[in-house]
Amino acid sequence: MSDTITAIATANGIGSISIIRISGDKALEIAKNITKKDNFKTRYATLTNVYNSQDELIDESIVLYFQAPFSFTAEDVIEVQCHGGFIVAQSILKSVLSAGARLATAGEFSKRAFFNGRIDLSEAEAIAQLIEAKSEDAAKVLAQQMKGSLKGFIESVRDEIIHILAYSEVSIDYAEEDLPEDLVLQIKEKLEELHTLLNKTLKASKSREGLMQGFRVAIIGKPNVGKSSLLNALLNYSRAIVSEIAGTTRDTIEEQVKIGTHLIKIVDTAGIREADDEIERIGIERSLEAIESSEIVVALFDSSRVVNDEDIEIARLIEKYKESKNIIVVKNKIDLEEKFMLDSLDFDISLNSKDDVSKLIDRLEEIMNESNNSDEMMLISERQISAVEATMSNIKEAFFPLEDQELEIFSFHLNEAVKEMSSITRPFENDEMLDKMFGSFCLGK
Amino acid sequence: MSDTITAIATANGIGSISIIRISGDKALEIAKNITKKDNFKTRYATLTNVYNSQDELIDESIVLYFQAPFSFTAEDVIEVQCHGGFIVAQSILKSVLSAGARLATAGEFSKRAFFNGRIDLSEAEAIAQLIEAKSEDAAKVLAQQMKGSLKGFIESVRDEIIHILAYSEVSIDYAEEDLPEDLVLQIKEKLEELHTLLNKTLKASKSREGLMQGFRVAIIGKPNVGKSSLLNALLNYSRAIVSEIAGTTRDTIEEQVKIGTHLIKIVDTAGIREADDEIERIGIERSLEAIESSEIVVALFDSSRVVNDEDIEIARLIEKYKESKNIIVVKNKIDLEEKFMLDSLDFDISLNSKDDVSKLIDRLEEIMNESNNSDEMMLISERQISAVEATMSNIKEAFFPLEDQELEIFSFHLNEAVKEMSSITRPFENDEMLDKMFGSFCLGK
Repeated sequence: MSDTITAIATANGIGSISIIRISGDKALEIAKNITKKDNFKTRYATLTNVYNSQDELIDESIVLYFQAPFSFTAEDVIEVQCHGGFIVAQSILKSVLSAGARLATAGEFSKRAFFNGRIDLSEAEAIAQLIEAKSEDAAKVLAQQMKGSLKGFIESVRDEIIHILAYSEVSIDYAEEDLPEDLVLQIKEKLEELHTLLNKTLKASKSREGLMQGFRVAIIGKPNVGKSSLLNALLNYSRAIVSEIAGTTRDTIEEQVKIGTHLIKIVDTAGIREADDEIERIGIERSLEAIESSEIVVALFDSSRVVNDEDIEIARLIEKYKESKNIIVVKNKIDLEEKFMLDSLDFDISLNSKDDVSKLIDRLEEIMNESNNSDEMMLISERQISAVEATMSNIKEAFFPLEDQELEIFSFHLNEAVKEMSSITRPFENDEMLDKMFGSFCLGK
Repeated sequence: MSDTITAIATANGIGSISIIRISGDKALEIAKNITKKDNFKTRYATLTNVYNSQDELIDESIVLYFQAPFSFTAEDVIEVQCHGGFIVAQSILKSVLSAGARLATAGEFSKRAFFNGRIDLSEAEAIAQLIEAKSEDAAKVLAQQMKGSLKGFIESVRDEIIHILAYSEVSIDYAEEDLPEDLVLQIKEKLEELHTLLNKTLKASKSREGLMQGFRVAIIGKPNVGKSSLLNALLNYSRAIVSEIAGTTRDTIEEQVKIGTHLIKIVDTAGIREADDEIERIGIERSLEAIESSEIVVALFDSSRVVNDEDIEIARLIEKYKESKNIIVVKNKIDLEEKFMLDSLDFDISLNSKDDVSKLIDRLEEIMNESNNSDEMMLISERQISAVEATMSNIKEAFFPLEDQELEIFSFHLNEAVKEMSSITRPFENDEMLDKMFGSFCLGK
C-alpha cells in the first residue's frame, strides 16, 4: 500500500470551499509539484497558487501538510483547500493525478488508517456512520464511539473472558483432577454476568435503531379516519426543516419528518396516501404489517362515526402489541358530534380535524427522547451485532462442558467468544469482510 | 461590522469533510469556547474535541486559526474542519452560534473581504463565478481574474483617462485660450484607441459567454430529418460525464452535453423532442428563434429525401447567418439512397443514420476551442459589461465638446468615464448594488 491516493473529500455541489485529500509517500512531492512551492511545514496552512499539468493557474488554495505518522492515515497527508464548486476541485484532482497519485477507492483513507493502527474497526464504523448520521443524538453517540468508547467496552468484555479462560487453561495444562466445585460456580457466575451484560447491550442497540436510521412510525386506522390528513400535517410541520437535509433523495424525503432532534420515517405511506374513498383491500393485514415494521404506532379512531368491526380489530391489535411497541391511541375529529363508543380503548390524545397535530408531535418527541435516555453501550452495525450474538452463544455453549468438567470443549467455546469479541475492533483474517466494509464508506474517507 | 459571523462553507451532502467558517473579533474566543482549548497558533492545524453548548462531545475536528489581517476577510478567522455529512456540521454550527456568532448572510465573508480591502469587486465576482464555473476553461479565466488580472486592465484604462483629463483640466484652470490643435488631435487619437480597446474587450466578452454559461447549440432542420436521434446520440455520448456534474438540476441536465472541456446546452429541445410524425406548426419561425438564441447552429438535411420548400428556407437562413453564427451544415442519412440535390449548400459533415456523431463532436469541439483561443481580457458580469458600455459612451460623448473646445463638458464626460471604469473594481457609493451583488453569492462565501 505504498502508492499515493487522492480524492475530493468534501460533498459534491455548490459550496464556498472544497478539499482534495492526498495520502501516501509521494503526497508532499505532489503538493510541491502542483504549487511550485517547496516550503511546506507540517500542520501549517500555506496560501499558494495551484497549477495544472500544463502549468496554467487553476486556483489559489490553502495547502495543509500532515507529516507521517501524525495524520489521519498515519501516512504523509496533503489537504488542498480550494475554492468551492465542482470544476475547481476536479481540475486540482486531475492535476494531482497527473503528478503521480491514483484515485482512492471508497473508504481507502480509513482503510489505511486502520491498517496503520490509527483507528480500530469500531472507530472506523463510527466515523462512516457519523457522516451519514440522521440526527444529532445519533451523531453524539457516534462521536463517542469514534473516540473509542465502544472499543473500551469491547476490550473490557474480551479481557474478562480471557481471564476466565486463563483459569481453566491452567487446569487443563497442569492438573489431572477436576476444577474445584466452588471455582466452577464462580466461573459460571461470571459468564452469566457477561451474558446478561451483552444481552442488555444487544437489546438496547436494537431498540435504539431509530436513533441511527430514523424512527419508523406507522399510522393505522380504518379508511377515512384521517390518516392522510395527519401525514400531511406532519409533513407540513417539518418540511422546512427536512428540506435542509442534504443527501435525502427526492423519492424518500416526503416520508421523512423531523421532530425535535429526531428523524421519523412514516411506514407504509403508499397505503396511507390511497384515495380516501377507495376501499382498503386488506386493511387489517396491512395494519399488522405496519405495526411489525415500526417502532412507534399511531392508531387513529374517528370520533364522529360509530364503532365498526375494523375499529374493534384494530383495538385488538393495540391490546396485543401494547407491551412491545410504543402505541399512541388517538381519537380524531373531536370537533364533530361524538358517536364513537368503545370502552376497551384508552385514548392518549384527542385531535380535532383541523391541523392540530402539536399534541401528537409532543408525544412522539417524548417517546423518542425516552428511547434515547439509556446510557447503555450501543452496537451500530450488523457486523457488530452478529459478533456479539456469536459471543453470547459461545458463552452459553460453554456452560454444559463446564459443569461436566469437559474443560477442552469449554475452553474451545471461550476461545471462540474471545475471537468474536475481538473481531469487532480488529478482525483476525478476513480481507473480503474488510473490503466490503470499507467499500461502503464514501469517497474521500 | 464588528460582530462575528459563521456559516458552513462546504457543499451540502455526503462527504468526508465539512468546514464551518467563523470570522470576526470573537472568532478565537468562540473556538476556545467550543473546544475547551486555548492554544491556537495562527495558521496551525490543531486536532481537538468539539463540544456543544451542553458540553457534550459532538466531534473531533481540525481547527485552523487565521489571525487578522492575514485571513480571507482580513478579520480573525477560524475554520473548523469536521467530519462530513449534514448533522455534524449543523451541530457545530449551532454550538458556534450559541457561543456568540451569528449566521452569515450569503456572500457576507466576501463582502467583509471587500470592505477590508482584501479584494476588489472584480476579484469578488471572479471568486463567486469560479465556484459556479461550468467548464475548466471558464475556471482558468476566473482564476486569473481572482488574482487581479481584470483589475490590472481596468486600472490601466482608468489611469489613461485620468491622464487625458489632467491635460484638459490644466487648460481649464490656468488658461483662457483654447487647447492647441495638435493637442486636441493627440487627445482624440488616444480616446479613440481606448474606445477601440474597450469595444474589442466587450465583443470578446460577449462572444465568449458560452465559455461561462455553456455554449448554446441549436439543432435545426425539417421534421423527420433526424434531430431527435442526433440529440439522443449527443446525450448518450456525454451522459456519463455530465452526471458527475453536481449542481445541475434534474430538469436541465438532459439538455446539457459535455464535449472535451466545454459544456453545451441544446436550444429549443422541446421542439426537437416533438414526436417525429407530428407536423411542425411553425417550422421556419422556430428555426429562426433557435438560431438567434444560440452561438452554434447544427443544420440537418436528409440525404434520402428530395429537397422541399422547408429545406430551401433553411438554406436561406444559413446563408443569412453564416457570418454572425457558427453554422455546421450536416448531410444526414447518407447510408440511404441519395435523393437530395441543392447546389447552394456546402456540407461540412456527412452522417449516416446510425450513431455516428463523432465527426460532429470533433467539429463542435474545434469551434469551441477556437472561441476560447483569444487572449482578450474578459468581462464576466452584466455589471462589468454595463460599466464598460457606459465608459465607452462617455468617451464618445467627449469627442464633440473636445472639437468645439467646450472643455468643461468634455471634462465632465471623461470624469464620468473614470467613475464608470472605477466602479468595476471599487464602486463610489452604492450600498444597494453591493447588497445585491454579494447577496447572489453562496452561503459561507
